[in-house]
Amino acid sequence: MESTARDESRFLKACRMEPVDCTPVWFMRQAGRYLPEYRELRKSHTLLDLCRNPDLAAEVTLQPIRRFDLDAAIIFADILLPLEGMGVAFEFAKGEGPVIHRPLRSPGDVKTLRLMEPAEELSFVLDAIRVVRRELSSSIALIGFAGAPFTLASYMIEGGRSRAFQEAKLFMYSEPGAWHELMVKLATITVAYLAAQIEAGAQAVQLFDSWVGCLGPEDYEQYVLPYSQSIFERLDRYEVPLIHFGTGTATLLDLMKKAGGTVIGLDFRVRLGEAWQNLGRDVAIQGNLDPIAMLGPQDLLRGKVLDVLSEAASQRGHIFNLGHGILPQTPIENVSAVVNWVHQESRRVDDVQDEL
Amino acid sequence: MESTARDESRFLKACRMEPVDCTPVWFMRQAGRYLPEYRELRKSHTLLDLCRNPDLAAEVTLQPIRRFDLDAAIIFADILLPLEGMGVAFEFAKGEGPVIHRPLRSPGDVKTLRLMEPAEELSFVLDAIRVVRRELSSSIALIGFAGAPFTLASYMIEGGRSRAFQEAKLFMYSEPGAWHELMVKLATITVAYLAAQIEAGAQAVQLFDSWVGCLGPEDYEQYVLPYSQSIFERLDRYEVPLIHFGTGTATLLDLMKKAGGTVIGLDFRVRLGEAWQNLGRDVAIQGNLDPIAMLGPQDLLRGKVLDVLSEAASQRGHIFNLGHGILPQTPIENVSAVVNWVHQESRRVDDVQDEL
Repeated sequence: MESTARDESRFLKACRMEPVDCTPVWFMRQAGRYLPEYRELRKSHTLLDLCRNPDLAAEVTLQPIRRFDLDAAIIFADILLPLEGMGVAFEFAKGEGPVIHRPLRSPGDVKTLRLMEPAEELSFVLDAIRVVRRELSSSIALIGFAGAPFTLASYMIEGGRSRAFQEAKLFMYSEPGAWHELMVKLATITVAYLAAQIEAGAQAVQLFDSWVGCLGPEDYEQYVLPYSQSIFERLDRYEVPLIHFGTGTATLLDLMKKAGGTVIGLDFRVRLGEAWQNLGRDVAIQGNLDPIAMLGPQDLLRGKVLDVLSEAASQRGHIFNLGHGILPQTPIENVSAVVNWVHQESRRVDDVQDEL
Repeated sequence: MESTARDESRFLKACRMEPVDCTPVWFMRQAGRYLPEYRELRKSHTLLDLCRNPDLAAEVTLQPIRRFDLDAAIIFADILLPLEGMGVAFEFAKGEGPVIHRPLRSPGDVKTLRLMEPAEELSFVLDAIRVVRRELSSSIALIGFAGAPFTLASYMIEGGRSRAFQEAKLFMYSEPGAWHELMVKLATITVAYLAAQIEAGAQAVQLFDSWVGCLGPEDYEQYVLPYSQSIFERLDRYEVPLIHFGTGTATLLDLMKKAGGTVIGLDFRVRLGEAWQNLGRDVAIQGNLDPIAMLGPQDLLRGKVLDVLSEAASQRGHIFNLGHGILPQTPIENVSAVVNWVHQESRRVDDVQDEL
């Protein structure tokens, strides 16, 4: 049993809802600014430099794997990478996140968007995936990812991050034809991009619909679901786990499951057990510790980790993660502690259950 | 029946779940920047000037009442007004919202906070309430309001608006004793403030816990519920409707109801009918049109208004409102149209039901 666990990733097993020796754990943005070795690299390279150099991207991807007993690596990249090839220039302004210089504002702007070819134009991501796979032990899975059409569209229309997503929603409401065209283009590119990542060696892929929680269920169903659904349907043939993630999605979870994904990613606003109960036990669950708890004192943090494990109640198909990306201020020792607690305590919960 | 409706506010009746001739409607921030007459006043007065001058505050409160067939007025004020008396200086920076110059960061900072006396130090709000009540016809109710302890604390600790409320949550997690002291102080002031508003003539009061949706249910229950509950319990004796509002609260609604309020305010992320079903029919519901829909084309807007009415299904105790404050860019004609649609269409739904 132990040797099987070492041979094949317990992350992939949990995605497929197979029995595991303990709960697998990884963290969104685990390759990032909370790591001194990452900050060191960023002194001489921009974020986009790192993404575009396969060796550096692979190095950054592997940094957290060397430090912590994580069950999966996620390729270092950014969800906005496809935008440049579509004709939407952007940069990362210091401390402000992405800035898109000429946001989409009219149906005409959508018409001019190029259907870029990820396999060629983002070949550096695929090369980085190949490098990482060579370095990674078979017990640690490599996850690829892409932004979902709604979340990409929200950046393209807002011009950056937003609180209320007023421009994106107004575009969606006012220009339904152009919205459809935009979402179809983004879905087409996203399918090609994720398929290429799988072919390059990604063993699972996550669709980040990070900002879709700004919509109510009716809007999600009408303006988002068909496009996300078409992505999952077209990736189905690869038979790799497909993770569907968003934040603030408490009222959208059933529709997100309908759209697709073999694993649903939860944020910290929902009780994991209740959400899983409502979604049905035929889907795996990833989540859902509040990333801000990772900055708190360890006794509080440990309590919150145990709460998540207890909500998951040792059901098959739980992957421990945060409710959103790890924060730059997160202390290294807390990351290490959480990984160990998840492994140890989920093993113990199982033991207790076996005894009962 | 018609004359009763004219004599007593259908808003107050709906709050008490009594029969009404049609669904009452008002909008959060209905006195505000989308009105040219408000912008005109703001040319020569700051927001705080307007709040502190009872005649001007009353004038601004009445501006939307003169334009639209609204069922309630809400006194013009700001949830941060109590902060100054507590020793927390703030200003409204242009386009950035409130800025608190020295945010709370330590238990020592909490100790120095004064238990200010709203009846004296915010007497201008109470005077404005008295002026408005004299001007307002008996069919239009006047609503008072205050910020809830969590939302006020989040501003005081973050120093302004926030996306993730990292500092506020971290304070809550790391300094539970100081957090308790802060919440008790804020609850004490809030009770006194709302009681004074009711005594001055406010016929209902709304507790704005606008940002509480950044918390998961466990955190809400532990760090927020006891303090909000103590406010509602102590206001109970006034026997006026108490509205409990927040945004992003889909997973908190049952706990918010437990904390208190005779009316629960919903944001647009939840299906009104489903939320009401889950909460039980013993509580009135306020909401829940997306304020961004108010900027959209009228055919879309009308569809969304009808959706909300249809979700409410002519149940007693529905007050039509937005899911959050009206946006500055909202066209006047859309506000007018929504008010009329709500009144006309809810009357028609009733007629149809009578025929069945």
